[in-house]
Amino acid sequence: MSLMAAVQGVSTPVTSTRSPASLGHGAGLRPASPSSLFLRARRAAKPSPPAGDRRGVCHCVASPPTEQTGHKTKVSRNANMGKLQAGYLFPEIARRRSAHMLKYPDAHVISLGIGDTTEPIPEVITSAMAVKAQELSTFEGYSGYGAEQGDKKLRAGIASTYYKDLGIEESDIFVSDGAKCDISRLQLLFGANVKMAVQDPSYPAYVDSSVIMGQTGLYQKDIEKFGNIEYMRCTAENGFFPDLTKVSKTDIIFFCSPNNPTGSTASRDQLTKLVQFARENGSIIVYDSAYSMYISDDSPRSIFEIPGAKEVAIETSSFSKFAGFTGVRLGWTVVPKELVFSDGFPVAKDFNRIVCTCFNGASNIAQAGGLACLSPEGLKAMDDVVTFYKENTEIIVETFTSLGFNVYGGKNAPYVWVHFPGRSSWDVFAEILEKTHLVTTPGSGFGPGGEGFIRVSAFGHRGNVLEACKRLKQLYQ
Amino acid sequence: MSLMAAVQGVSTPVTSTRSPASLGHGAGLRPASPSSLFLRARRAAKPSPPAGDRRGVCHCVASPPTEQTGHKTKVSRNANMGKLQAGYLFPEIARRRSAHMLKYPDAHVISLGIGDTTEPIPEVITSAMAVKAQELSTFEGYSGYGAEQGDKKLRAGIASTYYKDLGIEESDIFVSDGAKCDISRLQLLFGANVKMAVQDPSYPAYVDSSVIMGQTGLYQKDIEKFGNIEYMRCTAENGFFPDLTKVSKTDIIFFCSPNNPTGSTASRDQLTKLVQFARENGSIIVYDSAYSMYISDDSPRSIFEIPGAKEVAIETSSFSKFAGFTGVRLGWTVVPKELVFSDGFPVAKDFNRIVCTCFNGASNIAQAGGLACLSPEGLKAMDDVVTFYKENTEIIVETFTSLGFNVYGGKNAPYVWVHFPGRSSWDVFAEILEKTHLVTTPGSGFGPGGEGFIRVSAFGHRGNVLEACKRLKQLYQ
Repeated sequence: MSLMAAVQGVSTPVTSTRSPASLGHGAGLRPASPSSLFLRARRAAKPSPPAGDRRGVCHCVASPPTEQTGHKTKVSRNANMGKLQAGYLFPEIARRRSAHMLKYPDAHVISLGIGDTTEPIPEVITSAMAVKAQELSTFEGYSGYGAEQGDKKLRAGIASTYYKDLGIEESDIFVSDGAKCDISRLQLLFGANVKMAVQDPSYPAYVDSSVIMGQTGLYQKDIEKFGNIEYMRCTAENGFFPDLTKVSKTDIIFFCSPNNPTGSTASRDQLTKLVQFARENGSIIVYDSAYSMYISDDSPRSIFEIPGAKEVAIETSSFSKFAGFTGVRLGWTVVPKELVFSDGFPVAKDFNRIVCTCFNGASNIAQAGGLACLSPEGLKAMDDVVTFYKENTEIIVETFTSLGFNVYGGKNAPYVWVHFPGRSSWDVFAEILEKTHLVTTPGSGFGPGGEGFIRVSAFGHRGNVLEACKRLKQLYQ
Repeated sequence: MSLMAAVQGVSTPVTSTRSPASLGHGAGLRPASPSSLFLRARRAAKPSPPAGDRRGVCHCVASPPTEQTGHKTKVSRNANMGKLQAGYLFPEIARRRSAHMLKYPDAHVISLGIGDTTEPIPEVITSAMAVKAQELSTFEGYSGYGAEQGDKKLRAGIASTYYKDLGIEESDIFVSDGAKCDISRLQLLFGANVKMAVQDPSYPAYVDSSVIMGQTGLYQKDIEKFGNIEYMRCTAENGFFPDLTKVSKTDIIFFCSPNNPTGSTASRDQLTKLVQFARENGSIIVYDSAYSMYISDDSPRSIFEIPGAKEVAIETSSFSKFAGFTGVRLGWTVVPKELVFSDGFPVAKDFNRIVCTCFNGASNIAQAGGLACLSPEGLKAMDDVVTFYKENTEIIVETFTSLGFNVYGGKNAPYVWVHFPGRSSWDVFAEILEKTHLVTTPGSGFGPGGEGFIRVSAFGHRGNVLEACKRLKQLYQ
């Protein structure tokens, strides 16, 4: 069975009865290991096996169970969930990494895969969080529910630090537990009856959340796309910026710059064209600037640097890749008061209602950390960490370049996008993992436009990055 | 204008153009104050006012704007958002409280309103969070993304602490940033094509998230209900447990016990009937046990104490009201592996996919706090805090009882449900606020079945609760 077949869930025999280990990674795409066979046998011996054993892959369209002796509810499965393909990309990679570690228990596996930060959070920031945590045990320092939109001081600090002179105010900022969560809340805001466009390749949460909300048609296996989504092809040929003359009008345009996964960054001129395109079509741009602090040239760090953007764009961002807050969870979304629906109703008012109904604010401890990030010492410390990762990026770019690969991104982003022409991304992923014990990310996991590429993340300890590059040189020299 | 009219947004002149202050509370239901008039005038003087000024209430069905000179997108507002009524209840109460404090700047306003915890978090718990925060600045202690489903140890700890001998395993537990957030993720899981039932009165997030997901019809002003929701009336006459012979079959049944707002707790016998009802109808119960630690008699603390519940129920709970984590944000949802859709597909697999796509795990610092909560010292400390709030409850119950009111709840819950027969809840709310500077919660904010009641929360410092009761005695004696 090819790796692509495994990823798409074609006829891999697995137990669909969830075991603790499989749920831990969510995908359930593993071959029947001795322990899962044991579990299966043990469950089968019970009088009422929970959901029965059956073949098929948990996240694809459900095939009828071959065995079901327990009580079944009469609630139909949400058809949108059935449209999703295989597992969410990153849990699937984590699962394969775990399987590899079981196979090679003594290997020193290095992950340049899921884009997870590795360097400690600067002490000026963690101290602020520790102080806040400790204060919660005092009468003076205790606080309960905060504002759903976030602490006023933090909202003001984000506005003045990242949107100074751009006309974005404290009240336009919604503090959140991260950009991924906000993307899903934005989809709730838009509802099922919109059509969206995404860069192809792009961060999978845009497409998957759109599928879950019911905005899309079925997955079309032949072209590897969902119906009713506009895929804006980003290739080396067009400098990873879509040819907007070929893009149809949609309601929503998800756009990420610096881009995950390609690492490319849209120029001021390109973003001006994008804003103009949105204005002409009456679209709303959801601009993901989670990597903007990695920009070292004069590319815009915010869509709101482009005149007219406030009337057509939302921006979502995060402390994750700036401050190493991937586990702490803190981000924000900007919904300018100037942005209105076709009937003139302010988008921010509806987003505010979503935030008040479906969310209860980011953790007060994380928010204290966010405030410390925005202090002069915090900003300097974050900048040092970003600089460190950018040095990693240079090492990785240099390695692949010296090996003769065409390499993209990496300049203004922590991601390096390496071309393996004519090869399957998952095959290359598997080859690198098997032969060098390095975890990367297969480009096709980000959409059909990523096929033939591998994303290499620069998040890693220096020693690991150097070691990884040494192994890559041995493999490909 | 009556208070009810104000709440329902009938013809109150307000600016719908968002000002910083109005967004802070989300409702936009305030009368035109001098400052908002100033803002309006200032904006009107600009060449391109953002969304134009118009009359109407921001969260009701949008009336066409009377003025719009800026760019308008062509994206239609999500019709489901337009169905929502006025503001989400608790931000609206916070707004009224603020208005009262402006009117009476010297008054000592005491809140027995939004159910927000007031007592410090036990030191054994905050210390663990402070240590975790500090560790994040070290190479050994740093961690990035955690599992979306939560830390393994915490999942195991929740399973063994709260579901011992109930057949719930670590893998059935999904750690979250709180029950309110999980309710919204559960609605995403179910999708638009289900019908739900709620207790009437009930916590507003169930109905509002159902409206947002598109499960409901329009709001019917005459009966104060949304179409396509089954309201299960809970009254003093039926002991606040619905007469199930009068409840139609629905896909989903939201059920909260100990109940918010009535403070009543379903007995083992009643929950057995509920589970039987769900099994017969093929329904899924979403059981909200966020107040279960307040139970002091032998009422079940979990729906899974009822035989057969694992095949028909999900349970959502939270550290908020146990450990004072309202601002720290930590909760969990149990989706048993035995629960399957009509086609046999496990509900947990789809919920896992939702959690992996729309969420990125609870804050690692909050999770460290959760682990400390489950230590023997943590459990004892939480118990002490709960006991303290329960003493408050007794004081409040005694006060209203001595004044001749019919009082419900309060025994196994931090909420006291006081009857003011024949009166409007919002009128009573306003009377108490105006005359005693006490913030309560109007019962009708929880559904039409709450009309004529006031919810009094027992979360407060002892001195404030005693002072509040003194003022209530002066008002109603």
